[in-house]
Parts: sequence; structure tokens; C-alpha cells
Amino acid sequence: LANGYNGLQEFVVKAFQMGKSDPRKVVFSAKMGLALVLVSLLIFLKEPFEYVARYSVWALLTVVVVFEFSIGATLSKGFNRALGTLSAGGLALGMAVLAMLAGDWEELVTIISIFVIGFIATYLKLYPTMKPYEYGFRVFLLTYCFIMVSGYKTREFVNTTVSRFVLIALGAGVSLIVNTCIYPIWAGEDLHNLVVKNFMNVADSLEGCVNGYVRCVEYKRVPSKILTFQASDDPLYSGYRSAVDSASQEDALVGFAVWEPPHGPYRMLAYPWKSYTKVSGALRHCAFMVMALHGCILSEIQAPAEKRQVFHAELQRVGKEGAKVLRELGNKIKRMEKLGSEEDILYEVDEAAEILQRKIDRKSYLLVNSQSWEIGTPQKEQGQTQHLLTSTRESTMPEFKSLSDLGQLPNFTSFDAGNSPATHFIPAGSVSSESIFNKQVSLPTPLTSIADEESSNEDESKTYESASALSLATFTSLLIEFVARLQNLVEAFKELSEKAHFKEPIGHYVREA
Amino acid sequence: LANGYNGLQEFVVKAFQMGKSDPRKVVFSAKMGLALVLVSLLIFLKEPFEYVARYSVWALLTVVVVFEFSIGATLSKGFNRALGTLSAGGLALGMAVLAMLAGDWEELVTIISIFVIGFIATYLKLYPTMKPYEYGFRVFLLTYCFIMVSGYKTREFVNTTVSRFVLIALGAGVSLIVNTCIYPIWAGEDLHNLVVKNFMNVADSLEGCVNGYVRCVEYKRVPSKILTFQASDDPLYSGYRSAVDSASQEDALVGFAVWEPPHGPYRMLAYPWKSYTKVSGALRHCAFMVMALHGCILSEIQAPAEKRQVFHAELQRVGKEGAKVLRELGNKIKRMEKLGSEEDILYEVDEAAEILQRKIDRKSYLLVNSQSWEIGTPQKEQGQTQHLLTSTRESTMPEFKSLSDLGQLPNFTSFDAGNSPATHFIPAGSVSSESIFNKQVSLPTPLTSIADEESSNEDESKTYESASALSLATFTSLLIEFVARLQNLVEAFKELSEKAHFKEPIGHYVREA
Repeated sequence: LANGYNGLQEFVVKAFQMGKSDPRKVVFSAKMGLALVLVSLLIFLKEPFEYVARYSVWALLTVVVVFEFSIGATLSKGFNRALGTLSAGGLALGMAVLAMLAGDWEELVTIISIFVIGFIATYLKLYPTMKPYEYGFRVFLLTYCFIMVSGYKTREFVNTTVSRFVLIALGAGVSLIVNTCIYPIWAGEDLHNLVVKNFMNVADSLEGCVNGYVRCVEYKRVPSKILTFQASDDPLYSGYRSAVDSASQEDALVGFAVWEPPHGPYRMLAYPWKSYTKVSGALRHCAFMVMALHGCILSEIQAPAEKRQVFHAELQRVGKEGAKVLRELGNKIKRMEKLGSEEDILYEVDEAAEILQRKIDRKSYLLVNSQSWEIGTPQKEQGQTQHLLTSTRESTMPEFKSLSDLGQLPNFTSFDAGNSPATHFIPAGSVSSESIFNKQVSLPTPLTSIADEESSNEDESKTYESASALSLATFTSLLIEFVARLQNLVEAFKELSEKAHFKEPIGHYVREA
Repeated sequence: LANGYNGLQEFVVKAFQMGKSDPRKVVFSAKMGLALVLVSLLIFLKEPFEYVARYSVWALLTVVVVFEFSIGATLSKGFNRALGTLSAGGLALGMAVLAMLAGDWEELVTIISIFVIGFIATYLKLYPTMKPYEYGFRVFLLTYCFIMVSGYKTREFVNTTVSRFVLIALGAGVSLIVNTCIYPIWAGEDLHNLVVKNFMNVADSLEGCVNGYVRCVEYKRVPSKILTFQASDDPLYSGYRSAVDSASQEDALVGFAVWEPPHGPYRMLAYPWKSYTKVSGALRHCAFMVMALHGCILSEIQAPAEKRQVFHAELQRVGKEGAKVLRELGNKIKRMEKLGSEEDILYEVDEAAEILQRKIDRKSYLLVNSQSWEIGTPQKEQGQTQHLLTSTRESTMPEFKSLSDLGQLPNFTSFDAGNSPATHFIPAGSVSSESIFNKQVSLPTPLTSIADEESSNEDESKTYESASALSLATFTSLLIEFVARLQNLVEAFKELSEKAHFKEPIGHYVREA
């Protein structure tokens, strides 16, 4: 009992929090109560409105069914209900006349017509493009059966049809007026905000993934929720997941938004809501790359920290610039602002990606494990070790690998900074190969001689090593692919901003004036 | 007019095709018609059932609303409707007594109670965990208002409540009996088939992506539907997309399946339907890797055909084995069979991945572009060209790159086949470097000398070249990551097969007997 009481208490607290975090829900509930009260007042009407009171249940039913959270949803349901009732009413009246003509067979005709209409309406409802009108088909079916059935009893076909329609119109009217006039909640605005939120989420996720990667964040144990793509509060994961997962929500919101009249900042007939989903789809296409980047963090095969350190600054810059582009686009959508015609939003991120790519280019020896190269083990035959590449040596001496790598770091970064040809062509390889040569001398046994005996085990660890270095290459090229996909996103944004007549950016305006 | 007629004709043809491709839809529609007819027969009842006929509309309404495609959905809606009606009925009766006690204030009390109940029910409906009971809240609200309103008129509170409940029970009973006894359609079975289908789709997509990649399939222009993740009939894309996109459908099906009693092959109380979604989630986790593989095909940066050719056989084998594992798991689920305890379903694919990884290891010089290595351009200083790695040379002579690469292919593959240490340590590097040296001699100008002048343009093309080689590394390591994720999928499958008491595989059974 105490348990149940605690559970209830917790539930009440959570319900309060829900209202606090989204006050619209409280408002909506109050509006619903108000609409019900207004319709219920009908019953208190005395003569000559007795008639309305008698059928008041239809108005009540309509309010309960039609009164939806957003105005678009209310309109769409109201339309469905009106269309279903009207068409079914007309058809039922016609069929009733036919059935009466059938004389003794009237009951049979009625029953058969109910079966046939029931069959056809249900079948058409299942047709894929009829999905938005599903509710309309239900109302159609109900109305048809109701009029046939109650008309047969009372012989008041026309009366039943008309009163039903009037009461439904009344209920729908009350719903609509209450819903629109008091604190309206627009599906279009929800869609707009959802898309903006997704931009921010993906940006956070991207930055988080890149920063996590260079900082060598690792999962001790990957949460099983991530492994089965369920909601989880991992910050890197939830960001892109929300963007990937919001597709069906967006579709629903677009379905409602198209019903809404021009309002607020969306002062345009046939506002291009579909373009919002296109932008969101392009964002999703980018989010899948962030997901793949996160996959590199989740993976068991991890690049060694020293190697990541080498590309630390470049990776991080691409991540930062990429997130900046996403946030800027998100803000542009939020403020409904076009891109300036001269401004190239992608300039910085493209540059950062190119710098990263060049660095990769110069240092791609770090990404592979040249020890096993079938074309590249000449020292064993020819003894000319000093001209080989550093990485070849490093991998023959796993113990010293990280040391030498770190040791050579400061050297090379200083070369990068002063990028003049003169310093660039100093044979950096020979420097580090000398220092390594010294270390190699101090080794007790030449490792190469016993390689053949324990080749199986060693092979495996070498394979792993090479895979782990390639993992860095993968992360980098996924990041660069992400940057490439931004182009597509910017195009989708431009299309939206044109179609929706976003305003010119303020800075741009000033320059032109 | 002719247009409209053609459109109608087309629509009818498509509707027929829908019925042909899924006859269950035809059956369901006929069942719906039958249920409506059965309920409508109530009206033809003469005395002493006049009373039932008067309220028959409630039964009709119930059938129209509750009769759903699958039995689980029908049961869940029926339960919601029953619970909503009963609890609202009880509450309304209590409130009516209170209101009558209020004497003159009765109308006010009624109105206020409608507002308060309307507010609370609507607010709770918005609470996230209450989503499955959304319909129940609606019915609750409708019933409460209806009883309060019509009871006030007629003073027949109890009568209204009871008759309404009886008629709703009648409608729900008819729906349920017709839906269950005639050609039942189970949501659980749909879920089962959907998961199996997703396995097959991802397998096809994987195989298609790998085969397409080694065959250098390219998109002239990437369909914009893919760029915005919308449905498209591209075979590589639609396969994994269906698996990625079916999450909400699966959730809905699970929501219904848990309502279904044990039936057919699912003869178990509390059948672990949730485990199906877990397996499906793990499959989705794999499908994201297939998506990333497809991303390599979509990307603008493409690895050169000759390099892909080198890993042709290994890549294709991993793709084939990976798809085989997926298909086998899919078939196991379809047949509801466990994995044999000795059988390691991943053996082949792991082996294939390892072979690929080793080959990558041996030939990783193909994945990078050593020309720009800051540590590795000693020939300019020291002139000792003959000991450099082939790839360094290749990239200084772009024209000969593909030739030399292809030329050295047969040599090396024969080394791979005979894997004895003796042949392995033949200095392969010197062979190919000799043959390249000959070619280099025939070049008119030494390219290296003019490198400094036109460095900017050349830099860019070099950068592109290195990116394009890395793209192959990315594809490979994504493929290997896909294989790694299969482990997780197999585990999810094992959990499902345990919980759902799948049968032992037949071969295994025989061996034990």
C-alpha cells in the first residue's frame, strides 16, 4: 500500500513537472474542459431547442474526438468528420429510398448494403495513400450504418441525417473556435522548432564525438541501448539519435501543418512545410556520418592515443567548424533568415577539412603499418636499414613505438608551422631513424630472427595494430565525408529559404543600403 | 473528365493489385462488413428487445472503432473502451448523486465537474507513459459527459449507464468473435515476419554494396531522395533503409502483440515480443554500418579502380559471408530454431575478415600516398631512389600508377597463395621497383624538379589522390566493423532464442540422440 502511495506521489510530481516544462499542455487541457462545458450547456436549453438537446450526444462525441493538440490536427480531423458525415448521409438517404422501393425485401437490401459499404470503405481505408483520411472512412462507415439502422426504426431518415450533421457541425465549430481563439498551438511552429532543435543536437553530437575521439574517450562497456538503437541518455548518442529518429514525428507534424491557415511568421498561402522535412532529411544524411564517427568511438579497435594526438588540432578544428555551420544554419532557420549572397558559410569548414586532409597526406605513414608490406622488407636481404621509413622500424619494436612517436612529435609540428621549403626538406626521416637506431642497439635480442617461430601470434597482434591505425584513417575520412555532405544540407536550406521567403540577413541588408 | 476517368481506372487497378499482393486485406474488409451486419441485425429485433434496439448506435459505434486489422489491436482497443466506459460510468453515477444533493446548484456542480474531469483526463492523456491508453481516456471523457448530460435530462442515470455498457460490450464481443474466429490476423506474426524480412533486406543491401564497390559502381548523380533519407527504389538503399526505418512500425506491432493470447507457434504465456525488437535493434546497429558502406559509394571521393581490384576477392568474400550470416539468422528466426551449441555461425565471416585485414596489412602502402610524407622524401637529398617503396614512386608518376599496380598484381597474389616463409621473404619490393625504374627512365623530364613551382595546384590533386586512396581504407574498416557488430547481433539472437524457447536445430538433435 505504502508502495502504491509512493508511486502515486511520484506520478503526481512528474505530472506537475510535465506542466512546468511545457505549459501548453496545461492550457490545452483547460481548453478541452471549456469546449466540453460549452457543448454541455446545450442540454440545459429549454424549448424550442428541445430537439438540439436530444441529439446533443453527437456534439459531445465530436468535441471529444476532434479536439486535438494543434490547430492543424483539429482542422484535419474536423474536415474528415464533416466529409465522412456528409457523403455517408447522402449515400444513406439514396439507399434508404431504394430499400423502401424494394418493399418486402427492404430488410435484406438494407443488410446487404451495409455489408457492401462496410467492405468497400474498409478496403479503401487500407490503401496507402488514403492513410490521412483513415478517420474520415471510419466516420463515413459509422454514419452510414447509423442512418440506415435508426432510419429503419423511426422512418425519419432526413430528420436523423440533418440533426446529426447539425450537431456535429456545432461540436466541430465549438472545438475550432475554442482551439483557435484561446492560446493557439500550431503544428507548423512545432515543426519549425523541432527542425531547429535537431540542428543543435547534431552539432553538439558532432563536437562531442570529435572532442571525445581526440581525448581518447572510451566506453568501458558499450550500453546495450546503443547497440540496439534505443533511447539512451548518452550525450554523444542522444544528439544524433534525436535527429535520426524524428522522421515520423516530422511527417505527422507536416500532415497537420498543411491544414493550418497562414499565421504568425508563416504568413503565406501554401507555406512550404515539405521543404522543412527536406532540410531535416539532409540533416539526417549528415547525422548518419556523425553516427559513423561515434561508431569509431564505440568500436573495439581503437587507434593509439599518440597517433590521434598528432592530428589533434586539425580534427578538433574540423569538428568545431562543422558544428558552427550546423548551429548557424539552425539559427538562420530559427530567425527565418536567408544566407547572405556573398557569404560562404562553408568556407571555414572546407578550409579546416583541407588542412586536415593535407596533414593526413603528409603523415599518412602513421595510418598504416608498414612492417608487413610484402614489397617493403628489403633490409633483411640488403641490410640497408638507414633509408627505410620510420614507421617500418617502429612496428618491429612495439615497445618503443609510442615513445618514438611522441618523441618525434615536437620536431614535426615545428616543421609544419614554419612551412618554408627549406625546413620542409630537412630529411626528418633520418633524424628519427637515427634515434631509433640507438634504441634498437640496446635491445638484447634481434627480434627479427625469432619472428618465424611465433609468427601466428605475432601476426595476429600485427593485424590488430594495423587495424587500429587504420581506424584513425576511417575516423578522418568519415569526418571529411561529413563536411562534404554539408554542401547538400546548405543547398536544401537555400531551397527552403527561397520557397519560404525568408528575410534577407540583416548585415547583408545594411551593406546593400 | 477523361483524365478523371483514367485516374479512377488506375486507382481501381491499383486497389485490385493491393488485394492480390496481400489477400488478408480483402479478408479483413469482408470481416468488418460481417461484423457490422451482425450488429445491425439488433435493430430488427422486436419486443421485448425494443430497448436494445433503441441504444443500438452504441454497439455500431463500438464495432466501427474497435474492429482493427490485427487481433492484438482489437483487444487493446476493446480493453481501453471497456475500462474507460466502466470507470467513467462509476464516477458519473457518484457525481450525479452529489450534484442532486446540491439542490439548486445542481447545474453548476454538473458543469464544473465536466470541466474538472475534462481537464484532468486530457492532461493525463498527454503524459508520455499514458500513450497506449490514449483511446481509453477519450472514451472515459465521452462516457462521463454523456451520462452526466443525458442523465440530467432523463433522470435515468443508472439505466443510461447500464444500457450503454451492455451495448458496448455487445459490439466489442461481436468484433472480437468475428475477428478471432474467421481467418485471424496476428500482430505477433506480422512482427515476426517483419524482423525476418529486415534480415534479408540488410543482407541483400550488404552484398549489393560490397559487390557494387569492387565493381566500381558509381552514381552519376546521387538521387536527392537518398540525400534526404526518403523512400527510394534504389536496391542498395531500400534494403538497409527498410530495416532502419521500421522501428516505429515494430513498436506499434509489439504494443499489439503483447495483447494477443498464445497462438500458433507462439504457444507461451508472456511471449518475449520485446526481444524481437531487441534483435531488430541490433540488426539496425549493423544496418547503420551498411549505410556507411553505401556512403562510400555515394561519396564524391572514390578510390581508384585498380586499388579496389587488389582487394576484390577478399572484400567480396567478407560481403558474401556477412550476408550469409544475416540470412542464416533470418532463417533461424523464421523457423524458430536455436543456434547449435557447437556451431559457430560467425566462424567463416570472422575468418574472411581476418584474411582481408591481413591483406590490408601487407598492402597498406596502397591505401596511402607516400609522396608527401615529410619524413620520407630522402631521394631528393640523397639520390638513392632504388630502395624506396613502390607507392612513393607510383605517385610521382601518375600515368604509370595504374599500369604498375595492375602489373604487379599477378606476382603478389601468387606469393600469397604459397605462404611458406621461403617465398614470402623474396624481396618483392626490389622486383617491382626494378620494373618501375625502367619505366621511369623512359620519362622525358624528371617531374620532381618542377614540383616546387606549381606546388599549389599539384598539392590539391595530391591531396585528392591521398583522400581517394584512404577511401578504400575507410570502406574496408567499415566492413570489418560491420563484422564486429555481428557478434552483438548473434548475442541478441541467442537471448531471443532462449527466452522464446526456440526449438533445437534439427541436425543438432540427431547428433545428440
